[in-house]
Amino acid sequence: MTRLQDVYPDNRVILREVGLRDGLQLVKTFPSTAAKQRWIREEYAAGVRHFEVGSFLPAKTFPQFVDVREIIQTVGALPGAYGIALTLNERGVNEALASGVAEVATVVSATEEHSQANANRTRESAIANVKRLCELRDASEHKPIINAAVSMALGCSIVGAVDPVEVLRITEKLFEAGVDMVAIADTVGFAGPKQVGELTAGAVKIAGNKPICIHLHDTRGMGIANASAALDAGARVLDGSLGGLGGCPFAPGATGNVVFEDLAFLCESKGFKTGIDIEKLVAVRSILKSEMPGEALYGGMARAGLPRGTAAKAA
Amino acid sequence: MTRLQDVYPDNRVILREVGLRDGLQLVKTFPSTAAKQRWIREEYAAGVRHFEVGSFLPAKTFPQFVDVREIIQTVGALPGAYGIALTLNERGVNEALASGVAEVATVVSATEEHSQANANRTRESAIANVKRLCELRDASEHKPIINAAVSMALGCSIVGAVDPVEVLRITEKLFEAGVDMVAIADTVGFAGPKQVGELTAGAVKIAGNKPICIHLHDTRGMGIANASAALDAGARVLDGSLGGLGGCPFAPGATGNVVFEDLAFLCESKGFKTGIDIEKLVAVRSILKSEMPGEALYGGMARAGLPRGTAAKAA
Repeated sequence: MTRLQDVYPDNRVILREVGLRDGLQLVKTFPSTAAKQRWIREEYAAGVRHFEVGSFLPAKTFPQFVDVREIIQTVGALPGAYGIALTLNERGVNEALASGVAEVATVVSATEEHSQANANRTRESAIANVKRLCELRDASEHKPIINAAVSMALGCSIVGAVDPVEVLRITEKLFEAGVDMVAIADTVGFAGPKQVGELTAGAVKIAGNKPICIHLHDTRGMGIANASAALDAGARVLDGSLGGLGGCPFAPGATGNVVFEDLAFLCESKGFKTGIDIEKLVAVRSILKSEMPGEALYGGMARAGLPRGTAAKAA
Repeated sequence: MTRLQDVYPDNRVILREVGLRDGLQLVKTFPSTAAKQRWIREEYAAGVRHFEVGSFLPAKTFPQFVDVREIIQTVGALPGAYGIALTLNERGVNEALASGVAEVATVVSATEEHSQANANRTRESAIANVKRLCELRDASEHKPIINAAVSMALGCSIVGAVDPVEVLRITEKLFEAGVDMVAIADTVGFAGPKQVGELTAGAVKIAGNKPICIHLHDTRGMGIANASAALDAGARVLDGSLGGLGGCPFAPGATGNVVFEDLAFLCESKGFKTGIDIEKLVAVRSILKSEMPGEALYGGMARAGLPRGTAAKAA
């Protein structure tokens, strides 16, 4: 059984590397299993402990995650490291529960329109599926953490603006359904820091002593500013991907998640210890460059390095 | 005589395009005078009103600014537009005063070490020069606004960390010397948003009803987050350059100023009207691309465009 307080201690900031799942969603070439393992091990050596490693979706559609079980094992073998796998249906849930992964992630759309278009189901039906997932978790051997993301929570690719009251209502229902944590996702990078700060504050209040994860995309250059606002509003779990790997099918040319190494610098600059050695983290980009030479990598830390006089290593 | 309240009304946010000066400091090829004029006129049509256009430094060393007088005229001919020119010595000051430029900018280093290394003078001597500049302004025909920047105010390329108490002391002395406004410059992009917010709040308090300009570089990816913190702390005048044009000799590969179009989106997202049409602004990048094909341009708005449902034009 995975204990929430061990994986997400509430007295510090946790940064999660989601490049191995979200970052690989749209890339043109896939890293080999061995390269993924090097990526994980080298980030682990740099201090990273939370890795979204893949999804239990049909390998025919998502061949980049065909090795998800092996990657879960890779992370599981590292002391104090936690793997996260995405599931969207009951078959996937059962496979995820059987895999021994520390955390199972799933998704509910913030808007009815996106829920219907993307998953062909209502939001209420999606929340009912999350409840079923929590029941299966309770009956499982490993009892992983269940993390439900609210996608399009800060703007929807179909309807545009999203009512924060709706997002908070869904957040509340997800906790009632039995999830351990909720992720607030700016899936298409619509938001600015004011909006992110306000929604984060509301979600953190609802969550009480459970974690709220903030999952941001840097589509319009607001990623780090939004992360800063989320931290100010009380979020302590944030997602990023090394080099901002990834993209969005709804915004051609858009970058992926917030740049992980810049996110670490942001946190350290605000006095939040991440446990991450930023220079070591930046060095891991070489794996991505050699495995996926066609992908653009972003980020200021990689260009400029730590400022003079900055301690290279976090406490 | 240029009246401060006309150029910098205190009830709104003003974004200044500094790409024509700071952005051209290190570029490999220079735009033609005609291209600079198109750049200004097209940004003016997009709603931009404040342009740093060049410097009165020796044309032998800075040939990119040899046409500074002509560019000052170009801006001056546009109703409600204001040009800014940099000067560092008395010869340049006299030329700037004679040019009819709306604003004369000058610089004092935040640290003694950088002042000596960069300008071969003490900070006190630099402040005395600013006082002399203000006296010359008082005796001049056009009486332009005098803006003194504190460079390295958030981190120094020579000594690293900078004491904010020192920066605020210099800010106070500059206002005592007679300047109309002070710019706080993160010249080498060392800072995070916490540091920027705290220093901005202190400087805004000292400035009273005079403007504080926040001049940020996106060297380490913190530019927009820092701008957001500066706005939160009360700054209402911010610099940026189209596409983040520019660089820093102390940080190879580092980007230049904050991306102007992303800065405009940030402000609008926070409820600050900029008067700038972001889509028109993004379109001006084509001039930079054709004139300076070797320069990297950055920014999220150019990649992804405005979010669905966002009004394209500002009020």
